[in-house]
Amino acid sequence: MSALANDTLLRALAREPTEHAPIWLMRQAGRYLPEYAATRAGAGSFLALAKSPALATEVTLQPLERFPLDAAILFSDILTVPDAMGLGLHFAEGEGPRLARPLRDETAIAALSAPDPSDKLRYVLDAVREIRRALAGRVPLIGFAGSPYTLACYMVEGAGSEGFPALKRLLYARPELLHRILEVTARAVTDYLNAQIEAGAQAVMIFDTWGGNLTHCGYEEFSLGYARRVLAGLKKEADGRHVPSILFTKGGGQWLEAIAASGCDAVGLDWTVDARRARECIGARVALQGNLDPAALFAPPDAVRLQARRVLDAFGPAPGHVFNLGHGISQHTPVESVAALVDEVLTYSRTQRIRVG
Amino acid sequence: MSALANDTLLRALAREPTEHAPIWLMRQAGRYLPEYAATRAGAGSFLALAKSPALATEVTLQPLERFPLDAAILFSDILTVPDAMGLGLHFAEGEGPRLARPLRDETAIAALSAPDPSDKLRYVLDAVREIRRALAGRVPLIGFAGSPYTLACYMVEGAGSEGFPALKRLLYARPELLHRILEVTARAVTDYLNAQIEAGAQAVMIFDTWGGNLTHCGYEEFSLGYARRVLAGLKKEADGRHVPSILFTKGGGQWLEAIAASGCDAVGLDWTVDARRARECIGARVALQGNLDPAALFAPPDAVRLQARRVLDAFGPAPGHVFNLGHGISQHTPVESVAALVDEVLTYSRTQRIRVG
Repeated sequence: MSALANDTLLRALAREPTEHAPIWLMRQAGRYLPEYAATRAGAGSFLALAKSPALATEVTLQPLERFPLDAAILFSDILTVPDAMGLGLHFAEGEGPRLARPLRDETAIAALSAPDPSDKLRYVLDAVREIRRALAGRVPLIGFAGSPYTLACYMVEGAGSEGFPALKRLLYARPELLHRILEVTARAVTDYLNAQIEAGAQAVMIFDTWGGNLTHCGYEEFSLGYARRVLAGLKKEADGRHVPSILFTKGGGQWLEAIAASGCDAVGLDWTVDARRARECIGARVALQGNLDPAALFAPPDAVRLQARRVLDAFGPAPGHVFNLGHGISQHTPVESVAALVDEVLTYSRTQRIRVG
Repeated sequence: MSALANDTLLRALAREPTEHAPIWLMRQAGRYLPEYAATRAGAGSFLALAKSPALATEVTLQPLERFPLDAAILFSDILTVPDAMGLGLHFAEGEGPRLARPLRDETAIAALSAPDPSDKLRYVLDAVREIRRALAGRVPLIGFAGSPYTLACYMVEGAGSEGFPALKRLLYARPELLHRILEVTARAVTDYLNAQIEAGAQAVMIFDTWGGNLTHCGYEEFSLGYARRVLAGLKKEADGRHVPSILFTKGGGQWLEAIAASGCDAVGLDWTVDARRARECIGARVALQGNLDPAALFAPPDAVRLQARRVLDAFGPAPGHVFNLGHGISQHTPVESVAALVDEVLTYSRTQRIRVG
């Protein structure tokens, strides 16, 4: 493996000083990029794209060709894990992902087992290896998985949903069955992320997209408790370097202290979180990633630059901030907004550091 | 006007001792009730129902016939105000509400004005008067309105939406235009709530359903700032009694201190908020309303009772708690779950008070 030409992300995640705030964007390889749309059309379907290591590599690198981003993130989907568990992932055109065999009875839940990633998820690991070769040390590669709770939401509901009523019914009526799903899924996610690290992922992120739909107590019991198990089971080093972990709970702003104590190296913040308060509360313990409102990118470039500076001012120039959006980039984002954002973050965060000496 | 036979709600909102925690449910008159569905079918449409004072009275009282609730809430819709402003409210069957003429250009925004509630919203005021007569002092009647920001979300977008992209584009690209909408809407909401109070509403609630989609700074600038104006402009007394106000921001758990300082008498908490923390932070200043996860009602009665006790234990028996859900009741809720909930809250909260003496 080649040495890293740009390790700004890894230094920021370790809360070491950097020349600028590193920036990458959740879902940076995606539909807002015309070149992505072209590759996706050629592949025939999202799943064909995600399951081809060559095409996954191609789209993973596309945003890096356009913008001077500080990290690549594996192009994949969090539902590869339920798919590997036999739940049958497919994408209905124009809708979201669907699982053909959601977990709706005790027998199916009892039969659930954690898949061997080197078998059923080999295509992802092949993609990680191929992306690392293609990156050739330019920037680090981030691997990822859904949190056990977020995966369980889809595994029980069978699709995305406003309120996940089937999941919630199970949670309140038969919590022991949900715990069984979460235990198996936590093992599956741990094995999957470790396999990604072995294949070459230099940092990993856990996406807890739906943890914010839980109550205060439910978040600890059903989401954070299992994320903690995953974090405890992760390989901490690869190629002689620490492999940092980032935990992102959308809607988790009320639980930052608990999230920061979960064993992760960095906490992802959605756009509703006050970055100043987050710095004060947990900034001495973990790095912070975020948190521009993705909708700010709908505005013209000058307005985007203003909002980027506001976010950088809120975090301040101290080490340990990775600039990102507070949620995945929208497919309706103009490409020029992203160009303005990346330029402003790199430029302005340098001046912040110079000002404080 | 007859004296109130049951003023438990008003005493709890004033943080005075009560024999039990008063309970009412957001959207308690609604589709989960078969008798509501029958009236709604007879009316032909939701709007015909909402615009008929006689039918609005009928459905407002339906849940009180089934359950020993401590309050009635006016049956209406928050979008009556944009409708009265000329934006053209209609309901597409099976979808949500839509506005025929959303605010998409400067001319339309400049032309916006606050309607005279005694003219364009007379049907609501007639309903308030008729409901008060029908209640005959049994329980107090709560009036309500959407927050200026939540109304603006619909007024710009034209419909409900996952992320309100048109609203957000306006907010980031032309904030001065959004401020103009919010100023006019805050005046309209103030006049509307005052007219409801004059017509007989004994408490009022402001629903900020979408304030939680804003950033920390944006919430103050675009949502709370205008809710504060409304609260400052409200009549504080009617029939010689204080008219309490409740402000509910879904997703507002990170901003409780600011919400409690807005001038409201009570803060509505969604189901993600830690009630213990809310009591500690703001319980000495305002009453608290909430906060059972509405999805808990999908479980069998025994599980519902358990979750109700957990919520009551979290708030504790001290004065100033109004039991409610953390969001509106789902149409898919079994009626027997609601019966179990109301019974458990009344019974268990009495024992809590006896235990502490």
